[in-house]
Amino acid sequence: MNQVLWIIIAGGALSILYGALTTRSLLAASPGNARMQEIAAAIQEGASAYLTRQYTTIAIVGAVIFVILTYLLSLTVGVGFLIGALLSGAAGFIGMLVSVRANVRTTQASSESLAQGLSMAFKAGAVTGLLVAGLALLGVTFYYGVLTQYLGYAPNDRRVIDALVALGFGASLISIFARLGGGIFTKGADVGGDLVGKVEAGIPEDDPRNPATIADNVGDNVGDCAGMAADLFETYAVTVVATMVLSSIYFAYDPDLLSRMMVFPLAIGAACVVTSIIGTFFVRLGSNNSIMGALYKGFIATGLLSLIALYPLTDYLVGLGTTLKANEATFTGMDLFWCGVVGLAVTTAIVVITEYYTGTDYRPVRSIAQSSVTGHGTNVIQGLAVSLESTALPAIVIIAGILSTYNLAGLYGIAIAVTTMLALAGMVVALDAFGPVTDNAGGIAEMADLPSSVRKTTDALDAVGNTTKAVTKGYAIGSAGLGALVLFAAYTEDLRYFIGQAATNPDHFQYFKNVTVDFSLSNPYVVVGLLFGGMLPYLFAAMGMTAVGRAASSIVEEVRRQFREKPGIMKGTEKPDYGRAVDMLTKAAIKEMVIPSLLPVLSPVVIFVIINAIAGKSAAFSALGAMLLGVIITGLFVAISMTSGGGAWDNAKKSFEDGFVDKDGVRHMKGSDAHKASVTGDTVGDPYKDTAGPAVNPMIKITNIVALLILAVLAHQ
Amino acid sequence: MNQVLWIIIAGGALSILYGALTTRSLLAASPGNARMQEIAAAIQEGASAYLTRQYTTIAIVGAVIFVILTYLLSLTVGVGFLIGALLSGAAGFIGMLVSVRANVRTTQASSESLAQGLSMAFKAGAVTGLLVAGLALLGVTFYYGVLTQYLGYAPNDRRVIDALVALGFGASLISIFARLGGGIFTKGADVGGDLVGKVEAGIPEDDPRNPATIADNVGDNVGDCAGMAADLFETYAVTVVATMVLSSIYFAYDPDLLSRMMVFPLAIGAACVVTSIIGTFFVRLGSNNSIMGALYKGFIATGLLSLIALYPLTDYLVGLGTTLKANEATFTGMDLFWCGVVGLAVTTAIVVITEYYTGTDYRPVRSIAQSSVTGHGTNVIQGLAVSLESTALPAIVIIAGILSTYNLAGLYGIAIAVTTMLALAGMVVALDAFGPVTDNAGGIAEMADLPSSVRKTTDALDAVGNTTKAVTKGYAIGSAGLGALVLFAAYTEDLRYFIGQAATNPDHFQYFKNVTVDFSLSNPYVVVGLLFGGMLPYLFAAMGMTAVGRAASSIVEEVRRQFREKPGIMKGTEKPDYGRAVDMLTKAAIKEMVIPSLLPVLSPVVIFVIINAIAGKSAAFSALGAMLLGVIITGLFVAISMTSGGGAWDNAKKSFEDGFVDKDGVRHMKGSDAHKASVTGDTVGDPYKDTAGPAVNPMIKITNIVALLILAVLAHQ
Repeated sequence: MNQVLWIIIAGGALSILYGALTTRSLLAASPGNARMQEIAAAIQEGASAYLTRQYTTIAIVGAVIFVILTYLLSLTVGVGFLIGALLSGAAGFIGMLVSVRANVRTTQASSESLAQGLSMAFKAGAVTGLLVAGLALLGVTFYYGVLTQYLGYAPNDRRVIDALVALGFGASLISIFARLGGGIFTKGADVGGDLVGKVEAGIPEDDPRNPATIADNVGDNVGDCAGMAADLFETYAVTVVATMVLSSIYFAYDPDLLSRMMVFPLAIGAACVVTSIIGTFFVRLGSNNSIMGALYKGFIATGLLSLIALYPLTDYLVGLGTTLKANEATFTGMDLFWCGVVGLAVTTAIVVITEYYTGTDYRPVRSIAQSSVTGHGTNVIQGLAVSLESTALPAIVIIAGILSTYNLAGLYGIAIAVTTMLALAGMVVALDAFGPVTDNAGGIAEMADLPSSVRKTTDALDAVGNTTKAVTKGYAIGSAGLGALVLFAAYTEDLRYFIGQAATNPDHFQYFKNVTVDFSLSNPYVVVGLLFGGMLPYLFAAMGMTAVGRAASSIVEEVRRQFREKPGIMKGTEKPDYGRAVDMLTKAAIKEMVIPSLLPVLSPVVIFVIINAIAGKSAAFSALGAMLLGVIITGLFVAISMTSGGGAWDNAKKSFEDGFVDKDGVRHMKGSDAHKASVTGDTVGDPYKDTAGPAVNPMIKITNIVALLILAVLAHQ
Repeated sequence: MNQVLWIIIAGGALSILYGALTTRSLLAASPGNARMQEIAAAIQEGASAYLTRQYTTIAIVGAVIFVILTYLLSLTVGVGFLIGALLSGAAGFIGMLVSVRANVRTTQASSESLAQGLSMAFKAGAVTGLLVAGLALLGVTFYYGVLTQYLGYAPNDRRVIDALVALGFGASLISIFARLGGGIFTKGADVGGDLVGKVEAGIPEDDPRNPATIADNVGDNVGDCAGMAADLFETYAVTVVATMVLSSIYFAYDPDLLSRMMVFPLAIGAACVVTSIIGTFFVRLGSNNSIMGALYKGFIATGLLSLIALYPLTDYLVGLGTTLKANEATFTGMDLFWCGVVGLAVTTAIVVITEYYTGTDYRPVRSIAQSSVTGHGTNVIQGLAVSLESTALPAIVIIAGILSTYNLAGLYGIAIAVTTMLALAGMVVALDAFGPVTDNAGGIAEMADLPSSVRKTTDALDAVGNTTKAVTKGYAIGSAGLGALVLFAAYTEDLRYFIGQAATNPDHFQYFKNVTVDFSLSNPYVVVGLLFGGMLPYLFAAMGMTAVGRAASSIVEEVRRQFREKPGIMKGTEKPDYGRAVDMLTKAAIKEMVIPSLLPVLSPVVIFVIINAIAGKSAAFSALGAMLLGVIITGLFVAISMTSGGGAWDNAKKSFEDGFVDKDGVRHMKGSDAHKASVTGDTVGDPYKDTAGPAVNPMIKITNIVALLILAVLAHQ
């Protein structure tokens, strides 16, 4: 297995190399004129300053948890946590660093042609995407290698499992802070800036007279880029770890098979990193000038190549004809290959569905644009309707995914499907990280007073960015939905293992002695857990929305104040104080991200302690387990409705940029009442899609990971 | 038992008598001047015309289902369905008839004093409330009496159970149509009217120049009054029936105990009808002029008297010291009494929490009003934040209710708690039905050009109405949440019964032979069921919101057209064509209510058939059962967030009527930008709180009842 591990590490290293080379070619491009560079520098400065403060705050929380984990469990667990946390942070930070340099270069490239603008923005996205996938793969593989090869632990040794789970926890913890903090910053700026700028003062988006405009562009980088990167890093790491936990339990019966099945998910990741790199070269504007089409080419190439790679890989590591037993299921390597195919199919389906719900050419977005004609209220009502509706098809896809993979290869089949789904993360994140770069590029074009044709090019790129951003979020949360049973199985199998050991060995895990767990829906503690878990995404989303509302209101007041005190701003004779808005948002985001982020960390502990006090250990373990599913069941719908709905609102607004022709044939231009109504919807959609909604995904993972850690700590007593 | 049944029927009859007498005293009051009567007549006419058409449409669906049920099961089942359907329809229709007569009399009474206005409006509400509770109680008791006493079936005969379940189905089916149809009508009118009237034309609410104003007032009566009454009728009937189903299974071991436990839930209902009647006399304005205080007096009196009545009643029917066994739980009559107390406590807690989230004096509503100062967008964001947050405390109350009652007396304890909770329906509906009457009264005052002091009085009443309306919805959905396990238990116990019979008796229920059901969360079919069920409230709410958006947009266009074609309307020289808006909405509501209403009817059938085809009967029964809980888990949060959030938005808007003082001490008056932003929020909240949100409650019940009917049909094969 040693050499397979090295090959996987080489795959991870390849993605880092790709990132380095692409970054070099990116930096070699022209950063435009002096004015453009000045603006870009201001954005860079704000983004770096914010992220530094954000990660400093997170580091304090992280240090406390590192000490606790090391004390309660062991140093290997603490180190695992650190690795996950550091790499997740690094993925976000490096993504931001690339993004703030690519933005201005994309503006410059867009002034030459759409194809060049696309190429530049996509390259930046690809760097972030491959770093996310590569670092996650490297982190898990490297630490697994250290534990099993260097320290010599068996692959299914509890010390290995606990350390890997802690790595996942580190990644999740950082990512929820990053998602929320970045989300609050970016949407506070966006909403606040739009409300005074577009609606009150009637100046366009990114107008340099708006004192919140630099903050808005900083936000794209720290929220949509860095926050998203940390989130997907976490999704990737946690899924791979959960699949490895299942491998360690299911295949313990055959040490040789075990060591192969432990690296199987990692190998899938490595193969897909390579196919993603190849896929990036397929992203090229066709003769029809379809941007989405160009991106799709890359995505489809990666998918098809992954499909092809998966076949020999499964044959080599598992053997297509080999019959395996996991839990009560019996299946062959070929069945696992088909599960991987289902994972790719689910990803494709979610991409297509999300494009339908957020693309400007389809019914949902058009219906929101149409409803803007009758006012602010009908716009928001229709947007909420679309947002609610957009959950149905993804849910059905996830259900179909569960049914088919379970029938192929039981719970382990579902795990392989989700792993394969997430193995595409490099390409999916590339499509997403492209969004904030183009958004910034448009802002810089506007502020630097470039010809309107440049803005038009960047706008076209940006509209696609809204869809790809929604796609990634749907993909992340969809993988959580499909992986719900995997995460839950990791919990139940761990629990079963401890209970079994406690019964047969009087020295082991005595906390679990005589525990009997009943996860039946007829058990009231299960229903209590489901309801409690179901509540968490609502409460969490409420906190996120409130934080954005509060931050935005303070920005509105600040901008109004600047307009009032410096009347020259609107005339263009006086320069607004951009720094103050950035400062205010930095403080607000850091302050507001802490409590909601701790909600999913503490909730599993709280429910366990309370139910344990009322009804004993067995009931407490049942309620805790049910909570994990409860949080996914409502979380899935909350997250999808928010991210798709928000994307749809944003693109409905974009429909007015070139004039929206309503059902009676009337054309409504930018600045019309209908357009203003669409701006309100966009504003509402902002915290939906970029703060509360996407943060639900790491939130779900954290509750699951904390539950596994609770088991580990209790086992350690 | 015969005489106990007669006493219960007497209790039900008493509520009818109370309704008749109160209606007589109501009608004796002055209906105001000629102009007021003319307006009231137009509202009456529109409401009657709409409800007649609505019920005609429902009757067609009902007739089809009657035939199917009679054919598939039996005539007693068909007749049960008819009784439920007819009485549910009657409750709504009569409530509307009283309401459209009380509105103008409340206007007249309000012109004399606040106390008289309150008294008049509350009387109207009390008639509806006691009819709902009385008719539901009479319907179930009467049919149960016919089946057991006249036809001589044993209390736990399947024919009795099936017939009662069908009665619940009849009530649910009518109520979902009524809730949705009425909701679409009322909110289409309200949203459409507000958008053109308040926002575009700048005329106040209920201004007679607005062509949608009569439709708006009609809507209050057909949606908030008739729809709500049908909904609560259904909640009451289904809960009592579900509790009786559990009684029939749990206490079959002792025929004497069985017959007593079958009537126990009915007796609780009868006692609380009497205490509710007494409670209505406590509603009286105190010296502090607090309207909510006056209503609370009635509610508290009813609650305390019910508590007192429950004690001897339980002693007489069950015996406080008697030890009972139900399933695996052992408990005493005293324990059941305490469960009833918990039911009352849960009701009280939900009332208090809802008042907090929707009352004008507390943080949530004030925060929405404050956020209106910075614009439409922040208003909606904060409203959504409040809406999401408002689910947490009710969820915790429900969890506490489940934990305490389950520990007292197992699943049956939960059933008794919910039954007691719903026994207060008479009083709770009275508080709610008061709302549309005062809303109409205000409209009539405005249209009849009465002095502004009258409108001020009716506005004060109306603001409280928003809270009491939210309370009822929270109460109904809360009872569904607490009752989730009861409804699920009715399904599982039925299923277990059929499986057991099939195993021991080769002539019985052979469809269930060799079925083994696994409701564990580790079973993927259970997770599939939870996800599928979880999707339904989202899809359903999306359809409801879309329907309102569409209806409202058509009203906006119609009103704009009338303003354009009849310029005299705005000058007051020309009369708008009120009838057209009423007509348009009637058609829209009838058309749009059908498909979403059929969603919960058909979904259980669809999931059963599909999973049966994929994985066989056992998996299909597991998935179907899990679906029932899935629909409650997301439904609870969707419904509470919508109803509380909508109420909060509405009252945030009302905060501006007398000027809202923001955090900087600035007063924002009616007509200010902040007020306009608050109107947008109110508009969005309208379909949230009065269409989609409340209809989720009957939707949940229907899926549960249909699942029971599927079992009955399969057993019949």
